[in-house]
Amino acid sequence: MSYKAPIGLSNKHLHLSQADLEALFGKGYELHPTKDLKQPGQFACEEKVDIVGPKNTLKGIRVLGPVRPETQIELAMTDARTIGIAAPIRESGKLEGTPGVKLVGPAGEVELDHGVIVALRHIHLSPAQAEEAGVKDKDIVSIKVEGDRGLIFDNVLVRSGNGHECEIHLDTDEGNAAGLGNNSFGELLK
Amino acid sequence: MSYKAPIGLSNKHLHLSQADLEALFGKGYELHPTKDLKQPGQFACEEKVDIVGPKNTLKGIRVLGPVRPETQIELAMTDARTIGIAAPIRESGKLEGTPGVKLVGPAGEVELDHGVIVALRHIHLSPAQAEEAGVKDKDIVSIKVEGDRGLIFDNVLVRSGNGHECEIHLDTDEGNAAGLGNNSFGELLK
Repeated sequence: MSYKAPIGLSNKHLHLSQADLEALFGKGYELHPTKDLKQPGQFACEEKVDIVGPKNTLKGIRVLGPVRPETQIELAMTDARTIGIAAPIRESGKLEGTPGVKLVGPAGEVELDHGVIVALRHIHLSPAQAEEAGVKDKDIVSIKVEGDRGLIFDNVLVRSGNGHECEIHLDTDEGNAAGLGNNSFGELLK
Repeated sequence: MSYKAPIGLSNKHLHLSQADLEALFGKGYELHPTKDLKQPGQFACEEKVDIVGPKNTLKGIRVLGPVRPETQIELAMTDARTIGIAAPIRESGKLEGTPGVKLVGPAGEVELDHGVIVALRHIHLSPAQAEEAGVKDKDIVSIKVEGDRGLIFDNVLVRSGNGHECEIHLDTDEGNAAGLGNNSFGELLK
């Protein structure tokens, strides 16, 4: 049976630890949410920082909340190449051995020795949605999208559990390669 | 039977008409080839120009030769968005109704009223190669690539005839979405 899911296109962004948030924005600083994201408890923030690589700087990059145990910078491969960083394709949170970068905020700078990734494409599903789609957490599936640049993404990770809500996460390179705009859908293939 | 072809990743570039070449570089100017491309008779040039859009400028973009009847600017969708131009996905040479852009060279500027495209992905094949692959000019095929970001590109145009040599042309968004480096191969699926 066909299972379709909405596609969320992630622009370059970062998650900050509380310590790095304070180093960049000031002691005791708290994030200012501006918009809830589709994944429960996740939100976009007012705060922006500059990401400084060896070749270039990405200015005014959006912080997503809430704060996390570790700072994580998620770039499309095009962005990573622009600033001269060879970021690996990784699942969120798997930061061991990843390259670092310098972050610049209004109150200070942070020199990270790791934390930059290109996100492994994935689909979020609640337990009930995963059951309906016939998949489980950590499965690898394919996602088909239609259009002038229609394609089938292989190696899409299923992330399912409480706190997940049906959404395919792709980055801007993937969205552009598939010619996707907002309000696009993908079909899950097993 | 499986047919594999090398992948050529196109970075943003442009082709110039003789009139625009002279407007940008000076009267009577001729291109200076630096490197032959895989497609017979095509070459990269010393010459670079700036591409100025409503939002940003792409500096030092490579000119490819030889000169053509019409100037054509080929951007990845990421590049087009960066400079604020809604470039359509088009086959090379089909420029009717495409947006324009300003070009800036060392000897002058050209304000184009059309010519900016995102290239429709395609595979070049000589007549003998097309026969071996079991396809013909203007067929639409799929191309499968392997790896962490393995995927199947649908809607790949076959361009076959004299003056074509086996090579899959993708842009940087497509290459990055598929995690491709140099010396990658794709498998033709019919």
